[in-house]
Amino acid sequence: MEKIILASQSPRRRELMEMLGLPFEVMVSEAEEKITGTDPAAVTEELSARKAAAVAAEIQEGIVIGADTVVALQGRILGKPADRAGAEAMIRSLQGQSHMVYTGVTLIRKRDGHTEARTFSEGTRVHVAAMSDSEIQAYLDTDEPYDKAGAYGIQGIFGKHIAGIEGDFYNVVGLPVHRLYQELKKLGDKQLFFAKK
Amino acid sequence: MEKIILASQSPRRRELMEMLGLPFEVMVSEAEEKITGTDPAAVTEELSARKAAAVAAEIQEGIVIGADTVVALQGRILGKPADRAGAEAMIRSLQGQSHMVYTGVTLIRKRDGHTEARTFSEGTRVHVAAMSDSEIQAYLDTDEPYDKAGAYGIQGIFGKHIAGIEGDFYNVVGLPVHRLYQELKKLGDKQLFFAKK
Repeated sequence: MEKIILASQSPRRRELMEMLGLPFEVMVSEAEEKITGTDPAAVTEELSARKAAAVAAEIQEGIVIGADTVVALQGRILGKPADRAGAEAMIRSLQGQSHMVYTGVTLIRKRDGHTEARTFSEGTRVHVAAMSDSEIQAYLDTDEPYDKAGAYGIQGIFGKHIAGIEGDFYNVVGLPVHRLYQELKKLGDKQLFFAKK
Repeated sequence: MEKIILASQSPRRRELMEMLGLPFEVMVSEAEEKITGTDPAAVTEELSARKAAAVAAEIQEGIVIGADTVVALQGRILGKPADRAGAEAMIRSLQGQSHMVYTGVTLIRKRDGHTEARTFSEGTRVHVAAMSDSEIQAYLDTDEPYDKAGAYGIQGIFGKHIAGIEGDFYNVVGLPVHRLYQELKKLGDKQLFFAKK
């Protein structure tokens, strides 16, 4: 069976990979973070391709999975907040609105001296409930906003402010699990998924 | 602060409760499982009320949370499969379709000799991708289907077959976290959520 390599150090992505039911390894290599576009979905695709390519350059055979996730409000990417004021501005802009989370994924397969690559992205709509001043301040008093793009994680205590989503939940967490599975089926051998253990 | 009691032994519900950021205890009491209706949402409400009432009967003060979750396809509740054939029939009926997952919740507050209760339910639509025979058999070969209503859990390896959802993801896991939070705010004191620790 071909080796599958996740080019991401995110523990959450590692957990999501488990859903595929395939053995995989983690390998991360320095990738250029410079981006050339501004469209959120295109940016995730570009960064996923760089991450996958950096790892693929170091192996002879296998399937490398690179991924990048962004939070976008009205087409504008929200990064990690610099400080409390930055986090507050983000939460104020997200509350009472819906926004998009995009994850771009690149699969690079190296085999018999050939390389093939496939890049795609998926968007999930997230509806954040209206929040009162006290709710915003209570949230900013926690550690949660400060190391996260868009100042929130859907799996943390911000979850109670999320009224609903449309699309793949796991895409918001960091990998579009269903789409990734479909694409791996196309790229990989049938035996990848249906070999008896 | 009033005591909050989760009337459920489910480890997943316990994890979801953590999102509320409130201290709580777990206490479970034997509740009559007999139901009188057939409407899936109404059934979850009825069972949540029984579970909450059984625990509320044993306490003097506090807020008890009872919950019940069902998987419903075209208005019909899917229980736990009896065996492999039953699981196969369920998965064949769910694949390539969308279905609903309902969680009913009852809050019972006891204070100063008074009791007030509130029951609600929430539905989330789940889209399951079309599955091939090999995919269905590979899934039935795992342990996952056999102890779960509807023969699947959204957080397990079946996740890769879920194309998307509409609504609260956590409602599918076992508690409509956002709605529960809103209802607790109505039922509880303001201090429940905004007291400085």
